[in-house]
Amino acid sequence: MCTAATYQTKDFYMGRTLDYEFSYGEKIAIMPRNYPLQFRHDGKKITHYALIGMAHVIDDYPLYYDAVNEKGLGMAGLNFVGNACYNDVQENVRNVAQYEFIPWILSQCASLNEAKKLIKEMNLVKTPYNEQLPAASLHWIIADKSGCITVESVKEGLKVYENPVGILTNNPAFDKQMFNLNNYMFLSPKQPVNMFSKELDLKTYSRGMGALGLPGDLSSMSRFVRVAFTKMNAKSKSSEKESVNQFFHILGSVEQQRGCCEVAEEKYEITIYTSCWNSQKGIYYYTTYDRRQITAVNMHKINLDGQQLISYPMLNDEEFYEQN
Amino acid sequence: MCTAATYQTKDFYMGRTLDYEFSYGEKIAIMPRNYPLQFRHDGKKITHYALIGMAHVIDDYPLYYDAVNEKGLGMAGLNFVGNACYNDVQENVRNVAQYEFIPWILSQCASLNEAKKLIKEMNLVKTPYNEQLPAASLHWIIADKSGCITVESVKEGLKVYENPVGILTNNPAFDKQMFNLNNYMFLSPKQPVNMFSKELDLKTYSRGMGALGLPGDLSSMSRFVRVAFTKMNAKSKSSEKESVNQFFHILGSVEQQRGCCEVAEEKYEITIYTSCWNSQKGIYYYTTYDRRQITAVNMHKINLDGQQLISYPMLNDEEFYEQN
Amino acid sequence: MCTAATYQTKDFYMGRTLDYEFSYGEKIAIMPRNYPLQFRHDGKKITHYALIGMAHVIDDYPLYYDAVNEKGLGMAGLNFVGNACYNDVQENVRNVAQYEFIPWILSQCASLNEAKKLIKEMNLVKTPYNEQLPAASLHWIIADKSGCITVESVKEGLKVYENPVGILTNNPAFDKQMFNLNNYMFLSPKQPVNMFSKELDLKTYSRGMGALGLPGDLSSMSRFVRVAFTKMNAKSKSSEKESVNQFFHILGSVEQQRGCCEVAEEKYEITIYTSCWNSQKGIYYYTTYDRRQITAVNMHKINLDGQQLISYPMLNDEEFYEQN
Amino acid sequence: MCTAATYQTKDFYMGRTLDYEFSYGEKIAIMPRNYPLQFRHDGKKITHYALIGMAHVIDDYPLYYDAVNEKGLGMAGLNFVGNACYNDVQENVRNVAQYEFIPWILSQCASLNEAKKLIKEMNLVKTPYNEQLPAASLHWIIADKSGCITVESVKEGLKVYENPVGILTNNPAFDKQMFNLNNYMFLSPKQPVNMFSKELDLKTYSRGMGALGLPGDLSSMSRFVRVAFTKMNAKSKSSEKESVNQFFHILGSVEQQRGCCEVAEEKYEITIYTSCWNSQKGIYYYTTYDRRQITAVNMHKINLDGQQLISYPMLNDEEFYEQN
Repeated sequence: MCTAATYQTKDFYMGRTLDYEFSYGEKIAIMPRNYPLQFRHDGKKITHYALIGMAHVIDDYPLYYDAVNEKGLGMAGLNFVGNACYNDVQENVRNVAQYEFIPWILSQCASLNEAKKLIKEMNLVKTPYNEQLPAASLHWIIADKSGCITVESVKEGLKVYENPVGILTNNPAFDKQMFNLNNYMFLSPKQPVNMFSKELDLKTYSRGMGALGLPGDLSSMSRFVRVAFTKMNAKSKSSEKESVNQFFHILGSVEQQRGCCEVAEEKYEITIYTSCWNSQKGIYYYTTYDRRQITAVNMHKINLDGQQLISYPMLNDEEFYEQN
Repeated sequence: MCTAATYQTKDFYMGRTLDYEFSYGEKIAIMPRNYPLQFRHDGKKITHYALIGMAHVIDDYPLYYDAVNEKGLGMAGLNFVGNACYNDVQENVRNVAQYEFIPWILSQCASLNEAKKLIKEMNLVKTPYNEQLPAASLHWIIADKSGCITVESVKEGLKVYENPVGILTNNPAFDKQMFNLNNYMFLSPKQPVNMFSKELDLKTYSRGMGALGLPGDLSSMSRFVRVAFTKMNAKSKSSEKESVNQFFHILGSVEQQRGCCEVAEEKYEITIYTSCWNSQKGIYYYTTYDRRQITAVNMHKINLDGQQLISYPMLNDEEFYEQN
Repeated sequence: MCTAATYQTKDFYMGRTLDYEFSYGEKIAIMPRNYPLQFRHDGKKITHYALIGMAHVIDDYPLYYDAVNEKGLGMAGLNFVGNACYNDVQENVRNVAQYEFIPWILSQCASLNEAKKLIKEMNLVKTPYNEQLPAASLHWIIADKSGCITVESVKEGLKVYENPVGILTNNPAFDKQMFNLNNYMFLSPKQPVNMFSKELDLKTYSRGMGALGLPGDLSSMSRFVRVAFTKMNAKSKSSEKESVNQFFHILGSVEQQRGCCEVAEEKYEITIYTSCWNSQKGIYYYTTYDRRQITAVNMHKINLDGQQLISYPMLNDEEFYEQN
Repeated sequence: MCTAATYQTKDFYMGRTLDYEFSYGEKIAIMPRNYPLQFRHDGKKITHYALIGMAHVIDDYPLYYDAVNEKGLGMAGLNFVGNACYNDVQENVRNVAQYEFIPWILSQCASLNEAKKLIKEMNLVKTPYNEQLPAASLHWIIADKSGCITVESVKEGLKVYENPVGILTNNPAFDKQMFNLNNYMFLSPKQPVNMFSKELDLKTYSRGMGALGLPGDLSSMSRFVRVAFTKMNAKSKSSEKESVNQFFHILGSVEQQRGCCEVAEEKYEITIYTSCWNSQKGIYYYTTYDRRQITAVNMHKINLDGQQLISYPMLNDEEFYEQN
């Protein structure tokens, strides 16, 4: 399905994989500060923070999958089928349609703290974008360099969780995912020592045996554990190149290869794209299943005071570098 | 440590990861047909098949880690520490120093069958390249489009195994690795069905649950199972781009991220490079930990009738593609 | 810690293990119909259903660990440390001290349905039996031949869950335990078939490979899965001897052996006793760690119209049967 | 299939489970010193050490499954289907039919050392007992208080392994089973510490989490690991009752419950009997699936100088002890 992660070196990075069996058509979309934002139930924003992110653009409107704003607050929506449950529109609250949750937050909040406050006023409602695009079942990860939260709208109401691991996948709900990490506390990047029996001469016959027990499949609970272990133990230098590169390696640990997750007869879920943004610099990096080279779109290369949505096609064609 | 794999679409592909905590300095080296090959104990070859592969080049001599010849026979050596055991030089046999096993085979054999026959005459000996480079503990995978074998020189003698899965990692010995796959026969890219109890309403709450139980750590036994599952279930179209790309996804399933395998205080094993060659076309593709874009070196772009080793540095610097 | 299970053949059976590092002193206690039951906050019951169960008896009062009443309704309390959370006494509700929850239900309810109704009126409170015996952190399983529920008093309030698997262990909360079973739906008493790859000749080299992946450790989540698998697949004839015997085999699958669960320096949790009652016949069977032979106490062998608690010591001394 | 174990307290204990879907009819058989032992190819023994063990008795001849002699040397044969490979009768060696391997060793050897020497002279042959009883595919564990070995007759020849863990199950071969223990060296009876990440507040929410990863199914490789962990960490006092009791708890960790291992339509493998002998005292203890109480047969209660095989039926009927 999908995996999101955060990563801190000198700068704060965040991104996600989008795993699915087909693409709706994605574009890297920059929404400048004066793009007129008409919310469905919550009025209009003429001026706001600029955003960059991956979106399905329809009628010049970006349905963002993930984005970051010019203040460094990032957000991603991930599948949460069977658990997501949205409200009906109510009076005297700020009703927000699920499809506009990302721009509603990122256009108005300069920090995670501001986002937390705004969410308290929010009633997340099931209004679809249009009849052809029913509400997606999602949950969200929101983060800046100060921290990370998970937002889940479930039957019992809206849950806002602190997310100390900076990871989100899909089902089950975030509290179950975090609890499940307890079962893996013995995993380590270091070699194990023999605690089975002092009387047996057991050997570490291979490097990397300290994480024996780490799940390797593509289910969302296993991806949560694996990417959490990878991210929490990841080491890199802090330059832009090294940080971004390491981030793609982290999400690479849960990449979905074509053929390994069959969702219908000869339909395979794959990692359609992987994104990584530098929250401070406003640069959105991505790779796709067919294009390994990292492509960058920099929001500050356009005039952020504009009114028009600027979008770039998601490049998807591998170009081999010919060394001879 | 390392992982090797084969992959068949329209063409036959083969390659490997090299996982280690530091690099000896690798180059992509093409040995043309008239490069004078002086074997340590087995005479000289003035004319032979041309090779391309990754090597540590010393005194203009390529110590190949992996290579393929112009006939489409490929070979890779992978760490086998604690198990590899080489012979002393004997009379009346063809003594081959372990460091020259790859060129000895690839320079003379046009097919896996020819390699199997030649190996029967071979006495693999411990002679080091020089005093500074002691014999590496290795085992080998040799393959062309007709099949794949594993060669292990152990205490009990030289073992040549048919390798039906087309995978090699490190310890333990190949027969134990293959046997271990039996324990994972229930893994599937399809969703599981409830066999636990008909009376319980168990649910597939996530996609990808059919491979629950697949190991996710970096030890060599776990990498063997994981990459075997990924390769045996991999699906791609058969064009060069799609085949090569899928091959890198297959080996990506066992990539080693910096930080997850600590081999000494703050020393981490990583996937230094990943290679993939098209056996028919003589093109050697590679990526490195720091450079995701696939780089290609084509042996047929040089004069293969030359006498000089042609080598190219292993490019290791990520270049982001700037889309705006 | 503890494991409880139900089992249906011709009759309905229920029981539990009590796992701990020391015993408080247990007795098999029969409370006849006219034993005067003085509840702490909910008045007095002069006449009520008779019970039999395992208890720590203090001041002639049975602090039941588990019990069944003459109508066939059974109940057991199991450790739930860190999650159990009891209320304060409130007005206008039926306040029940946690230590008297078992007799309060079993003395008044002839069926699970009656228990469910009564629980709706209950406010489970933290009042301890006395100052030396602080409130234990528990959750409960209640069952008769019609069904099974789990009752958990947690921070969020009193949770009453349908328990379709008829199993209870300890932490985490019951909903997490049930959810976790989804991860094991592929386990089977039958041999697995090769779904890994049709091209590999994988073998079932041993019987019993269909449940590869079943956890074997003594943690409460692993015991839940293991005993659930064992119970849901258990087969026996339906005579009393065969049913009771099979029940002890089911709970035997999660027995705690001395040495395998160290809870403090040289302190080991073991299965102190295992109980099994025939709900219809009012017979309470048990074994202890040191006494394998099944011992039976039959409530109908005493005058159930009495007023005095009748208790029997828990026999704990193995007697080998000498065949020659 | 089967599991064998050794256990040392003040005395040395050894025993096994026999797991199968039906019984051939077992008896506890004492072979006194003057029972005339006619070996098939290796002459006759008129006087020899006395034995006690479990056997299928045919024509007054005991086909021992497991036995111990009066000197304290014990031995058990366990299924090894698909791997066992016996020789043809040869000249100038001591040919021993596989069915008489146990009495051949135990009648002549006073210690493990003597057994090791005798085995060097042995040619283990496929001669069946008779046409109705084809040679069983077995391997063997032989032990006294000085040590333990495993004997396997395979395609490559007779293998005699030191057995430091004192455990035997079934397939695969013993060297693979021992190697596999390396993968579990991190298991511990103590609680795990958080090595996953210092920045995450992971919790041991249950006791017994130190052995998370221990396999719980009934396959022979999983039983090997589980009983090895249980035995190597087992703690008991050293009296006869406590030692024997703990031994049955150790083998109880791999007991096969009816229903959990289906070997054919509605045919289930179960633990038919579990045995435990005190090697020094010559007492043979056993329990059966249907009879939990430990039954004892003492070889020293009969005249060991006799000539007749003395056998006792395997008692199999549970007798509940009625406490009231």
